[in-house]
Parts: sequence; C-alpha cells; structure tokens
Amino acid sequence: MSIYHKEYRELQQIKLAVDCIIFGFNNNKLELLLIRRGFEPEIGKWSLIGSFVGKNEDLDNAANRILYDLSGLENIYMEQVKAFGNAKRDPSGHVVSITYSAMVLKSKYCEEKINQHDANWFPIDDLPEMVFDHNDMVDCAISRLRRRVRNFPIAFNLLPQKFTLPQLQSLYEGILNEPIDKRNFRRKVAQMEYLVKLEEKDMSESRKGAYYYRFDEDLYKLKQNFNL
Amino acid sequence: MSIYHKEYRELQQIKLAVDCIIFGFNNNKLELLLIRRGFEPEIGKWSLIGSFVGKNEDLDNAANRILYDLSGLENIYMEQVKAFGNAKRDPSGHVVSITYSAMVLKSKYCEEKINQHDANWFPIDDLPEMVFDHNDMVDCAISRLRRRVRNFPIAFNLLPQKFTLPQLQSLYEGILNEPIDKRNFRRKVAQMEYLVKLEEKDMSESRKGAYYYRFDEDLYKLKQNFNL
Repeated sequence: MSIYHKEYRELQQIKLAVDCIIFGFNNNKLELLLIRRGFEPEIGKWSLIGSFVGKNEDLDNAANRILYDLSGLENIYMEQVKAFGNAKRDPSGHVVSITYSAMVLKSKYCEEKINQHDANWFPIDDLPEMVFDHNDMVDCAISRLRRRVRNFPIAFNLLPQKFTLPQLQSLYEGILNEPIDKRNFRRKVAQMEYLVKLEEKDMSESRKGAYYYRFDEDLYKLKQNFNL
Repeated sequence: MSIYHKEYRELQQIKLAVDCIIFGFNNNKLELLLIRRGFEPEIGKWSLIGSFVGKNEDLDNAANRILYDLSGLENIYMEQVKAFGNAKRDPSGHVVSITYSAMVLKSKYCEEKINQHDANWFPIDDLPEMVFDHNDMVDCAISRLRRRVRNFPIAFNLLPQKFTLPQLQSLYEGILNEPIDKRNFRRKVAQMEYLVKLEEKDMSESRKGAYYYRFDEDLYKLKQNFNL
C-alpha cells in the first residue's frame, strides 16, 4: 500500500497542461482559433492555445491566463471539456492535458490582437493537422458543443438581445452544420415559453417583416425544457 | 515566454490523482461506494476511491487500477466526469484530481470483496461528510448522471435483457429520485422505437400480466431520439 502514501508523489513525474478550444461564430459559420507552436517538439505546427498549469494555480484560472497570454483574448467564459491522459500523447514526456472550451462571437474580439499573437481562425470543416492529439480534442469538443446546443439554451449569447426566428435558425444551422426544417424548427420554438415574442418587427429582410423575440432567462429557469 | 518552454516543467509540482465515483443500484435506490481513508491528512474519514496516477500510466487505466486495488471491483466501465483543480483542495499540496464515474447493479458485485477492502455503500440521500471536496465531486456526478439518463439510454444496462415497463419506470424513479407520471412515461416510451415489445408476459406481479420489452441497440443507433 506504500504507493498510496505521501512518498508516492516523489515517484510521479506527470506534467499538467491546459488546452483552450475557442470556437468563433462568424457569418453563420463556426471557426476555431489556433496558434503556431513556438517550441519543440513539433515546432511550427498548428496547436490549440495551451501550456502548463502553474504551481498553486487553480485550473480554471490557468485556462484564462493561458488563453490571454497566447491570444490576447480575455473575459471569456470557458467550460472544462475533458482530460486527455494517454501517457504517450506528448512525445516529450507524460503530459496530461485538460481541455477547456468556449464559443464566442468573432466580431466582438479584436482581430489585430489575435494577429499579434500569431494566432489564426480556421473554418471547422477545413482544419489543419494539429500537434499531438489536438484534432481528437477538437472533435470531442465539437460533439459536446452540438449536443449541448440541442439540449441547453447556450447559443442565445451569440445573438443580439432581440432577434428574429430566421436569425435563430441560421445560428443553429451554423453550429450544427446542417439544414433544419423550418416548420419543425418553428414548432419546437413555439414550445419554448421562455422565448418571448415582442410587438416590434424587423422590416429589413422582407416587406412582411419578422417579429423580434427575446430569451427570458428567468422563465427558462422555471420551465427548463429546452430541446431542439 | 520562458514558462512555455521545457524548463517550465521543473517549476511545476502538481500531483495528479483519480477519484472513482461508483454508484450502485439496489432495490430501486442509488447508493455510493466509499472507503475509509487510510493515511493523513484526514485519516479515517470517508473518501471516494482514489489515488495518484502512476508514471507512464494512461488516465483511464489508472482509474481501473485504483478502483480494483482499493475495492476489489473490476471490469467496470467508467466515464470521466471532471477534473477538480482548485490549488488548495488538498491541504497536503497542489493535487489535481480527475473524477471517473460508473453506475453498477450492486447485486452483481460480491459484498465480501468490498468489505475486505473496508469499503462501504451509502444511500445517496444520506451520505457522510467526506474528505476535501469529495462531496462536491459526488454532487457533480449525480447531476451529470441524472442529465444523462434523461438524454441517453444508459440505464438499460441495469435491467435484465427483457424487462417490463413498471420495472423500467421504477429504475428511472430510483435514479432520478422523483416519481414519474405513469401516463407521461408510457407516452415517451411509446416514442422509443428501439424499445421492442415482446410477445411474452411477466405474470408474477398481476393477473393481467405485463408485457416484456427489450432494448435494441442497433435500432437506437438508427433513431437516436432518446428523451425522457
């Protein structure tokens, strides 16, 4: 049983890293933020925004610090996705990496800042080959994101406060990367009592116009039956 | 930028652990497997089944090895839940712990083996105070489990190959810890085309009997619209 005692820690030489999977939404398409790896192994290849966790640094703080240091992005709410723990995933040693993910509106973040850091956006359906298991990490995060937008109202953050149903449908089609039947979509939306129809119309797209809606978070907390 | 280079790893003194959250299903109730912690800090307190990850050990393998060493349970499929990474969560140092979870049929596993390891089952609604943040870990895993059984057909593993609708409903009520309206339940079940009604009846509970059903995994893969 000695390995369960304190001495054990002297034997352990595992490094802990965080990798940030930042999805950007732009023109109804999902993109992914990557950076060129600046050191060996695999220097020059595209990589998620990641690094080691600092001593006495909380994991969530590490994710924010790493994202800011390497991309200039800040105040982004990220969620933990998964720890990748194959002992051979990084050829330089035993490194376990915990992935964090966020979905942001690209236009809200300054391109210049991102370019300064040698980071780049790539369309989700045309990603480059990345270092180590980073492509697997991204696949895992995309599946989770699509599952989550179907089950939770997490995509409303990407819309303005008031939005039309065509806007909402385009958003979902962009994230899910598939067309959604308009009548099915409206039927499901009609069941969401926390989507509040406003009196006002958007007249910019058609002569008839499209009613604006808003998402009511308090009502959602009461009803909680989101399901696309 | 030196912290992003290899030297950085010399600065890092984080230990990596795994904690296993094993739910047991018994008499339509959920229970949790805990063990008495055998070393300081907090020796003698109840704890999840956990320990450090070994050098060059894959994370998933570590979870299985730790569960077997400490409880005698083996061949249990576990899923990763979440990494707990508050730097101060363990008073003895910076330890990040990755939780794994499984739900098993208690009767399938030998009580004797578990008792030998000084492990014990506790009802979910009457858990003792545990070491560190283990109560938070369990809360997180219970929420996830309840979300998952509503959205994915993961509970069928706990039933015999053929089962009745009252059995299925009791199972869900036990996991969700709430009564389910019988008519709503039957209406939702009727929409699940991969629940195949058999000709045979269970006559043990009533004179009228209850038809047996079976879960057809291939059909589920085609349909995929589980939602309770």
